[in-house]
Amino acid sequence: MKKCVVILSGGPDSVTAAYWALEKDYEVHALTFNYGQKAQIEIKHAAEISKTLGITHKIIDLSNLSEIYEGVTSLVDSGIEVTGEFTDPIIVPFRNGVFLSIAVAYADGVGADLVLYGAHAGDEEFYPDCRREFYEAFQEAARLGTGRGITITSPLSHLRKSGVLREAARLSVPLEKTWSCYLPGPDHCGACESCNNRRRAFAEAGITDPTKYEHE
Amino acid sequence: MKKCVVILSGGPDSVTAAYWALEKDYEVHALTFNYGQKAQIEIKHAAEISKTLGITHKIIDLSNLSEIYEGVTSLVDSGIEVTGEFTDPIIVPFRNGVFLSIAVAYADGVGADLVLYGAHAGDEEFYPDCRREFYEAFQEAARLGTGRGITITSPLSHLRKSGVLREAARLSVPLEKTWSCYLPGPDHCGACESCNNRRRAFAEAGITDPTKYEHE
Repeated sequence: MKKCVVILSGGPDSVTAAYWALEKDYEVHALTFNYGQKAQIEIKHAAEISKTLGITHKIIDLSNLSEIYEGVTSLVDSGIEVTGEFTDPIIVPFRNGVFLSIAVAYADGVGADLVLYGAHAGDEEFYPDCRREFYEAFQEAARLGTGRGITITSPLSHLRKSGVLREAARLSVPLEKTWSCYLPGPDHCGACESCNNRRRAFAEAGITDPTKYEHE
Repeated sequence: MKKCVVILSGGPDSVTAAYWALEKDYEVHALTFNYGQKAQIEIKHAAEISKTLGITHKIIDLSNLSEIYEGVTSLVDSGIEVTGEFTDPIIVPFRNGVFLSIAVAYADGVGADLVLYGAHAGDEEFYPDCRREFYEAFQEAARLGTGRGITITSPLSHLRKSGVLREAARLSVPLEKTWSCYLPGPDHCGACESCNNRRRAFAEAGITDPTKYEHE
């Protein structure tokens, strides 16, 4: 059976990528990263969804990376508040580079020839490590660094977030079980950048939003 | 002051890279990785050398990566013996890819425009992630993934191991404080692949080997 590694954050994008891979008959090995993010709850969501799907799931503890992300990003540093303002430092430098490198190491070990993550067209403007040119370059580095051809891609790269939700609906993804908020929960805050994007995308997609937001 | 990040394993190659950067007047930020390697002692050597040099040093705990390296490499898995035979599975898949990705994230945070590691020409035959073509491709991925130009290189790439030791001698590197062995110590085993390389390189370089080996 052909195998793939999916970077699974627990958000709608990466969960949709996992469902996409299952539809394509891949044996899915999911990796979730604890990098000290305030939204630890997303890890629990990723675990629950993996269990439902019956796929292999590993949680990789990188919480010590907070050492290098302190002072840099509000998603990790407790001293920097998540306000929902446009100026929030929500970029975690080269996060997908770190995640992809470990996913490639894992893929090499289990003999997978595909690594998927949930980057989509709506991310490209703000996050350089979500762009196609980035993951294509990373794929080339991975080929040279492992001596094996491992394809790195996102099955959602041509879609904006509303398109991802429509694809999710087609694949019967349990969207109510996914997590987007930058904060610890237990409900989505409804005010941070990621909650705003989630809410807007549901509206644009014409799909009923099953999310409970603290701030409506 | 111009800054660089050095991946410092505690071995002679990476320590020489750090000395090289200091000679070039870089402010050096050293990163050492605990990836569950049996040779935990090398981390202590890296810390001591950093202290002597008065450089910033962070130890990043990736010991949870043993989850993905179990069954794959004798350098991590306690069930796979390090015998010193040529057939030992001593390759840790994409290890330098993982280390470089975190070094790039760190460099982006501290504003360094150079990332160094200690790959040299003698490694290139066996380790794809020590080859120049690999780190040049990785540099391109890092540029695209961070939106910043960060140079990734090894100042030793043109040298074989004996040449590295001669360069180390020129830079007054305290070679007796470096660690090469794949095993936990307290002395170098003198029988593993890495001890064999170390011993041979000292002989080739014509430098007195200060290392105490268990097996002479």
